[in-house]
Amino acid sequence: VVTRRSRALEGATLASQAVAGDRRALARLLSLVENGAPEGRVALARLFPRAGRAHVIGFTGSTGAGKSTLVNRVASEVRRRGDALAVVAVDPSSPFSGGALLGDRLRMRDLAQDPGVFIRSMASRGHPGGVAAATRDVVTVFDALDVPVVLVETVGAGQAQVDVAQVSHTVVLVEAPGMGDEIQVLKAGLMEVADIIVVNKADRPEAQQTVHALLAAHSRGRQPAGHHGSASQRPDAAGTAGWTVPILQTSALDGEGITALVDAISAHREHLRAGDGWQVLHRRHARAELESWLQRYLRGLVDEKVDAGVFDAALSSVVRREQDPASAAHELLETLIENLSS
Amino acid sequence: VVTRRSRALEGATLASQAVAGDRRALARLLSLVENGAPEGRVALARLFPRAGRAHVIGFTGSTGAGKSTLVNRVASEVRRRGDALAVVAVDPSSPFSGGALLGDRLRMRDLAQDPGVFIRSMASRGHPGGVAAATRDVVTVFDALDVPVVLVETVGAGQAQVDVAQVSHTVVLVEAPGMGDEIQVLKAGLMEVADIIVVNKADRPEAQQTVHALLAAHSRGRQPAGHHGSASQRPDAAGTAGWTVPILQTSALDGEGITALVDAISAHREHLRAGDGWQVLHRRHARAELESWLQRYLRGLVDEKVDAGVFDAALSSVVRREQDPASAAHELLETLIENLSS
Repeated sequence: VVTRRSRALEGATLASQAVAGDRRALARLLSLVENGAPEGRVALARLFPRAGRAHVIGFTGSTGAGKSTLVNRVASEVRRRGDALAVVAVDPSSPFSGGALLGDRLRMRDLAQDPGVFIRSMASRGHPGGVAAATRDVVTVFDALDVPVVLVETVGAGQAQVDVAQVSHTVVLVEAPGMGDEIQVLKAGLMEVADIIVVNKADRPEAQQTVHALLAAHSRGRQPAGHHGSASQRPDAAGTAGWTVPILQTSALDGEGITALVDAISAHREHLRAGDGWQVLHRRHARAELESWLQRYLRGLVDEKVDAGVFDAALSSVVRREQDPASAAHELLETLIENLSS
Repeated sequence: VVTRRSRALEGATLASQAVAGDRRALARLLSLVENGAPEGRVALARLFPRAGRAHVIGFTGSTGAGKSTLVNRVASEVRRRGDALAVVAVDPSSPFSGGALLGDRLRMRDLAQDPGVFIRSMASRGHPGGVAAATRDVVTVFDALDVPVVLVETVGAGQAQVDVAQVSHTVVLVEAPGMGDEIQVLKAGLMEVADIIVVNKADRPEAQQTVHALLAAHSRGRQPAGHHGSASQRPDAAGTAGWTVPILQTSALDGEGITALVDAISAHREHLRAGDGWQVLHRRHARAELESWLQRYLRGLVDEKVDAGVFDAALSSVVRREQDPASAAHELLETLIENLSS
């Protein structure tokens, strides 16, 4: 029989084993964490105080921009400079394939042999608290194991691309040449979270045009861009003030431009560390995590304290258009308050 | 002085005027509804019982697929067949441009002259309850005005593309040829919400290849596709059972294939009406709306009943890593419960 106590014990044991360097325990722990299992929660509570020092770098951008290859190159360069690192790849999964679409990450084979490299692929759905929460938790585990650099790679379209900013200190937006004038519209939600913009596949003839389009899109409505070469001031608030977003060109396949990219990533870290940026980001991330758990607990409270029949009746009254959803929700809230105070 | 009462009165008045056909009142009402203003809430509560009959058709897919042109063509064809309609375009806005990036919708000029056509562009951010909630509310207004067909067009990347399924009866996924093998990954989150798939710009040489790629992606892990020509069975649950997702080719610029597309849209509506699909979707939409309002009210309750200082202390303890976010959130919940019962 698996009791609450034995689960807590397993979570604590796995956390200790993972900290001690047991890779199998780590793999099992990550699965439990991803799935929101109670053992994972216990382990996370244990590991949380140990975390907070890793530099988390999120990679986002269009599919087909060569993001995976770029991330692998960056990983190799970070390793060459001496740091251990983790790669967390958020892959889209689909009910059509019953699993991650990208399949095995063959190109990662060299890195995977390296004991200083941790690789974790996670599906972009099936996480009780959402993919952002699950990604955060996986990052926390690596962070607590004293891994100094964590690369988070999001694949595919959707919210995951924007969510990466919620877990990262440095967001790298990766684009490929040839997106033409569509790019301004397409990236509207991503440009503003980028700390570094990369035009990969820079050997293609349209690369220069894409750099210009990105500059134009990025500086639109801002002061004239390009006063620092290919760079544009970020309009964001505290924490990133004074950072000039570089627009870099790489060719991940041949390894071109990777050194400059890793330099820019390090420079961004130093920039955050030199000002209050690092602290501001940590507070922002903590708030997002706290809010997400609060939402889950509040919703759980309704399930616990409001009779399912009452909830269904409210829903049915909305379906029948006897009551609008806002009023029905407000009545449920009042029922909850009544039940709590009685 | 604007009192609560005068706001309620203005909301109710605007609702009546809009129902009576006053276009200026409608425009003002829609702005209030989009912004979550109290007047808008009052109007929505009034209008909600009148709604529930419109056929809501969501258009989603990649930027650059020619979605806007296609939507305009569909709108013209729907009008030609006699129905009044509304077009709700969700545009990305960006702090870089300070407004909607797409600017004026010149191509819509012909339609905009037509008194049987309502056009509303809304920004994809700045809505207190999120874009999905704001879109739902705008659709409800048109629905309550007895507009029988509402086309919802989402522009750009991100969650908006997936959210469209939350407000629509029929989801049309629009793609352009030439996306090659990336398409399977790129569309992972969208394929499964599509009721109709359209390959626009079908005059391009790669069109056939894209149709095949879509068929392959769509039927992956399912029964062999193509047994009904270019079509694939939808894996979804109740309400859409028995519907065969057609994969159509259009050329919106020349108006090719539009008749067949509007036929397919009508056929999907009939399919939903013939079974329990329509009802199942309405229940699903109602649940999403109810849940979204419940979340907002619950979070508001915390603001109201838990001292801001207590919340900040919890946040700070997480930032300092003295407490993990789940535990901190749980303590806030307990504080809320205490404060409510005392």
